[in-house]
Amino acid sequence: MSVTATYTVTGMTCGHCVSSVKEELSEVAGVTGVDVVLETGAVTVTSSRELAQDEVEAAVKEAGYALA
Amino acid sequence: MSVTATYTVTGMTCGHCVSSVKEELSEVAGVTGVDVVLETGAVTVTSSRELAQDEVEAAVKEAGYALA
Repeated sequence: MSVTATYTVTGMTCGHCVSSVKEELSEVAGVTGVDVVLETGAVTVTSSRELAQDEVEAAVKEAGYALA
Repeated sequence: MSVTATYTVTGMTCGHCVSSVKEELSEVAGVTGVDVVLETGAVTVTSSRELAQDEVEAAVKEAGYALA
């Protein structure tokens, strides 16, 4: 099973921010890939199970950012 | 001997950028302190000897930024 979902993350300003978001989201159980487009804040997460919004939100918050 | 000089660094957008600049400048021989004001790009470097502009520029560049 492979699930892909795209979120919008606010507050990222540079490549370091992108790395932080990727790192935290990659640690969520089942996540197999994270793509970020800095300019738009689009964060696409691929996972082996459906993720709860809470989990994604918590990881993004842990990185220091927020979901739009 | 303690020398304090302030430079303007462009391109820093967040706390990660500040950390990168501080880290690289701290590695320059003789540097004892680095203060950064993100909003203005002001970087104040304290050192035990006079630093060459080249050294400061190289460290800032290494961090991924530029002197104004």
